[in-house]
Amino acid sequence: MSRYSDAEIAALYRVIRERRDMRHFLPTPIDPEMLNRLLHAAHCAPSVGLMQPWRFVRVTDRALRQQIHQLVEDERIQTAAALNERSDAFMKLKVEGILECGELIVAALMEQREQHIFGRRTLPEMDLASVAGAIQNLWLAARAEGIGMGWVSLFDPVALATLLNMPTGSKPVAILCIGHVKQFYSAPMLELEGWAKGRPLEELLFHNSWGNTMTESST
Amino acid sequence: MSRYSDAEIAALYRVIRERRDMRHFLPTPIDPEMLNRLLHAAHCAPSVGLMQPWRFVRVTDRALRQQIHQLVEDERIQTAAALNERSDAFMKLKVEGILECGELIVAALMEQREQHIFGRRTLPEMDLASVAGAIQNLWLAARAEGIGMGWVSLFDPVALATLLNMPTGSKPVAILCIGHVKQFYSAPMLELEGWAKGRPLEELLFHNSWGNTMTESST
Repeated sequence: MSRYSDAEIAALYRVIRERRDMRHFLPTPIDPEMLNRLLHAAHCAPSVGLMQPWRFVRVTDRALRQQIHQLVEDERIQTAAALNERSDAFMKLKVEGILECGELIVAALMEQREQHIFGRRTLPEMDLASVAGAIQNLWLAARAEGIGMGWVSLFDPVALATLLNMPTGSKPVAILCIGHVKQFYSAPMLELEGWAKGRPLEELLFHNSWGNTMTESST
Repeated sequence: MSRYSDAEIAALYRVIRERRDMRHFLPTPIDPEMLNRLLHAAHCAPSVGLMQPWRFVRVTDRALRQQIHQLVEDERIQTAAALNERSDAFMKLKVEGILECGELIVAALMEQREQHIFGRRTLPEMDLASVAGAIQNLWLAARAEGIGMGWVSLFDPVALATLLNMPTGSKPVAILCIGHVKQFYSAPMLELEGWAKGRPLEELLFHNSWGNTMTESST
């Protein structure tokens, strides 16, 4: 069957709605078989020219996890400084759960990507788009399994690459905190905290020309 | 409930496995309500600092669709030339279904992104990651609804931005072909066509240090 059942379709839309970028975790370990399922879901992602540019580093070494946490803490302070008048509000936000989460995975772009031209001659950044699709797969699968995930991008990529012995040309793009949670946020945490407010889709959808939010039937 | 039912979880993993990057479409129109659901699924995506950097341009003008097709055709020839010895094989591949698909949507990065520092001070490209997550949501929702989607990145972004009257600082990143299909590919089309072969996850998953594919239990 090409179309899924109504119940299956409803489940998919529900998980898309209920997925959250989590920062609060319980320390309960993640079942290794579940982690395997989540990573395989990521690996099912589309990739430009089938290059599969994603690489994952599973961090089980406790000292390494502490070092990664310190990198993020350093960048958190740098980001706060760059935010000027919003600096204090930013410093009050919880932006990561690196030390608490059950599993820590660094997602990265592979090295030697310049060899892949298909779909990337004018848009070389499509490799990152592929990695992001893989991470979104993992995120949705985790949510359905009742597991939280947070994507942390507050770090110096060169420093993190050094910590993980990454080769020239590769680049870390996400520190993924994966873990059990007490509860999922009812809305994006940055909305609940009053940091930002999402805009309705209708303002971001144009018709034939940028900025044209009016459909023909609504004119 | 935090964890979804077994049947719901199974449906999600199935749609993640069965999603395909489609290039073959039937001209049957897409129900506008379904298109609305798909775009709302995209809009549920996570975004760095809740910046929601995605913009969508729905192309209903037939002449505009033809112009976009020509842009892709131009880039297809440029890409073939850049592929040297694989040029002939590349030219035989069907790389887009722009003229056949029921709906054509251009996904783009918004303008004035430099104002958003949260999570982007060291990794400004996180805006693209957010857009890619939105597109992956749309892709999965379409597959569950029995609708195919293809992400075309063979175009000159400046030329496409000009066609769509996009402001300075914005950037198109995807031409999304959305439509009914006769059938979904049983595997990625580039594998079926012998262009490339996917690698197993195990080769791309490292432990604590890049290149370390051995787990402790397997040593």
